[in-house]
Amino acid sequence: MPEVRTIEWIGDESGYVRLIDQTLLPTAVVYRDCHTVEEIWEAIRLLRVRGAPAIGVAAAMGLVLGMKSFREDQGASYRQRLVQVADYLRSSRPTAVNLFWAIDRLVRVVAHRVDQDPPRQLTRRLLAEALAIEAEDRAMCRAIGQAGAALVGEGDGVLTHCNAGGLATADYGTALAVLFRAAELGRRFHVFADETRPLLQGARLTTWELQQRGIDVTLICDNMAAQVMKEGRVQLVLVGADRIAANGDTVNKIGTYGLAVLAQAHGIPFYVAAPSSTFDLSLARGADIPIEQRDPREVTHGFGRQTAPDGIKVYNPAFDVTPASLITGIITERGIIRPVTVEHIQRTLGGPAD
Amino acid sequence: MPEVRTIEWIGDESGYVRLIDQTLLPTAVVYRDCHTVEEIWEAIRLLRVRGAPAIGVAAAMGLVLGMKSFREDQGASYRQRLVQVADYLRSSRPTAVNLFWAIDRLVRVVAHRVDQDPPRQLTRRLLAEALAIEAEDRAMCRAIGQAGAALVGEGDGVLTHCNAGGLATADYGTALAVLFRAAELGRRFHVFADETRPLLQGARLTTWELQQRGIDVTLICDNMAAQVMKEGRVQLVLVGADRIAANGDTVNKIGTYGLAVLAQAHGIPFYVAAPSSTFDLSLARGADIPIEQRDPREVTHGFGRQTAPDGIKVYNPAFDVTPASLITGIITERGIIRPVTVEHIQRTLGGPAD
Repeated sequence: MPEVRTIEWIGDESGYVRLIDQTLLPTAVVYRDCHTVEEIWEAIRLLRVRGAPAIGVAAAMGLVLGMKSFREDQGASYRQRLVQVADYLRSSRPTAVNLFWAIDRLVRVVAHRVDQDPPRQLTRRLLAEALAIEAEDRAMCRAIGQAGAALVGEGDGVLTHCNAGGLATADYGTALAVLFRAAELGRRFHVFADETRPLLQGARLTTWELQQRGIDVTLICDNMAAQVMKEGRVQLVLVGADRIAANGDTVNKIGTYGLAVLAQAHGIPFYVAAPSSTFDLSLARGADIPIEQRDPREVTHGFGRQTAPDGIKVYNPAFDVTPASLITGIITERGIIRPVTVEHIQRTLGGPAD
Repeated sequence: MPEVRTIEWIGDESGYVRLIDQTLLPTAVVYRDCHTVEEIWEAIRLLRVRGAPAIGVAAAMGLVLGMKSFREDQGASYRQRLVQVADYLRSSRPTAVNLFWAIDRLVRVVAHRVDQDPPRQLTRRLLAEALAIEAEDRAMCRAIGQAGAALVGEGDGVLTHCNAGGLATADYGTALAVLFRAAELGRRFHVFADETRPLLQGARLTTWELQQRGIDVTLICDNMAAQVMKEGRVQLVLVGADRIAANGDTVNKIGTYGLAVLAQAHGIPFYVAAPSSTFDLSLARGADIPIEQRDPREVTHGFGRQTAPDGIKVYNPAFDVTPASLITGIITERGIIRPVTVEHIQRTLGGPAD
């Protein structure tokens, strides 16, 4: 299995970032080397790197790039320059929570030393923290993969939606981590990937990741999932999550809720894979979450060509909420929450991490 | 409401055919005048005209065009020329049942007179038969619309899939006929049109037809239907049919079966609208019907751009089978079959037409 590295740091604190340009997938596999914070800013802005954990890692590494060129004779202090670079990076995708979180974490780690330690030592410390974020993300992906792998039975058909794979994380993904681990353990199975309209993350990214790792995958349109289930070819539905409420209601890419209803109607187990950081315990239930509407042109001009009449109304919710009652289990890096109840969630999230 | 004419004959038996070029919809509305059988052949082949009933009408009118230029001094008899033109038209879309049916019907109507009546009179008779097929289709559409209109309640949300509209028939459509009639009766309601991957008939054609008639319509991706239902915005699901078995199992565009499961889960009535000619009583049940697989490029190269990796496997069934148990009723030109049982179907199809 060839390794796909979404993003990595090359060299010491005077090194650079190498990332795969996801806007060119799946027709071209291009790794870009970013030597400046401006290049990272652009990569995040233009979605060359996407997926919450991957954006966090990219922003952290971008901050290191921004500080490695710091010189004391440039008229600003290390602290001033750090604030400047951090603000600049925060402007790349202002709604990406992991981006803010990662930048804050790096700033905090040097905050109390910034007026005493030499610049090179501070930057080395920033890099160590960025690499720690990356390492934690990789460990989290591996732990989810390990926790869920036993759910994939020999000869099973697994249906997935959108991209909860390595391209969205530093390494291995969440839902796809389960499949990668099952494949590593020698399990043979088959994957159906929903293309996932409107932005086709399933068609463009998930099929590509599975193909790269030699896993048997078939692309379908979203409206074919029910037929594949009816034919008895799906034994497991496995998706990622954007946010999970305290009761287990799960926000994920639009189309997930419909799949959960179809899975229940066909008696097929429906699992969510997500790190414990995805849980938002301040939300009692999914109904409390407003649903974001996206640009109608994603639907009417999806393929570079206009495919609907001028002026047509469009409903384009970015995600939906799957009620906990339709979810068989949630696979986290701390184990599987099953059945999905408030108590089980609290017990799993409260316990010690592996 | 402006009238959209899918296809019509202009003038007497030396006239011509005017049809809307559906390949250019919805971004351009172009009517093409066809003066020769070759132009009709091309229009059918290139899907400028599509939908089983519309193809039947086009083929019938094409035969008239092929015979109107008949001259006795060209070395072939009227009969020979008729066989030639009929064979030529049959080659335009060799799997279109209505095409064969319409051509045979025209040939039959002149068969016993072909050696005695003057050519112009024979051609006039062919035209009369072609116009009869068109008129019957129009009457069928109107009767379906009339039979189903009461199902659309004031303020309702109606969800539809693919295109069972006027563009597929000579006039008014089947599923959409119900909506057109309800609108004519002054009912106000709202339609959600599934875009219908892979070929986007919903996005390209259904939204356009409804927009033309001033009916409030919103385009959604197929995977958003469940969310719209969950929000309580759908009171009726209404689709067409390609073929219906003796027990009511219904073959229709891929995605229909999933919608029926979702409708049941949300307690929403699910209706099929189709002329009685759609029933194939030689089929006991839907499971007896093999499911046609279509070109993977419809999925991977949807609109002139590649959106999936090279060499990826694709499952692309053209249609699915919705079991009668999920169908609340079938709206035909002879009335509504409800509940959908073998006995009700036989009683309705056996009875006299309106």
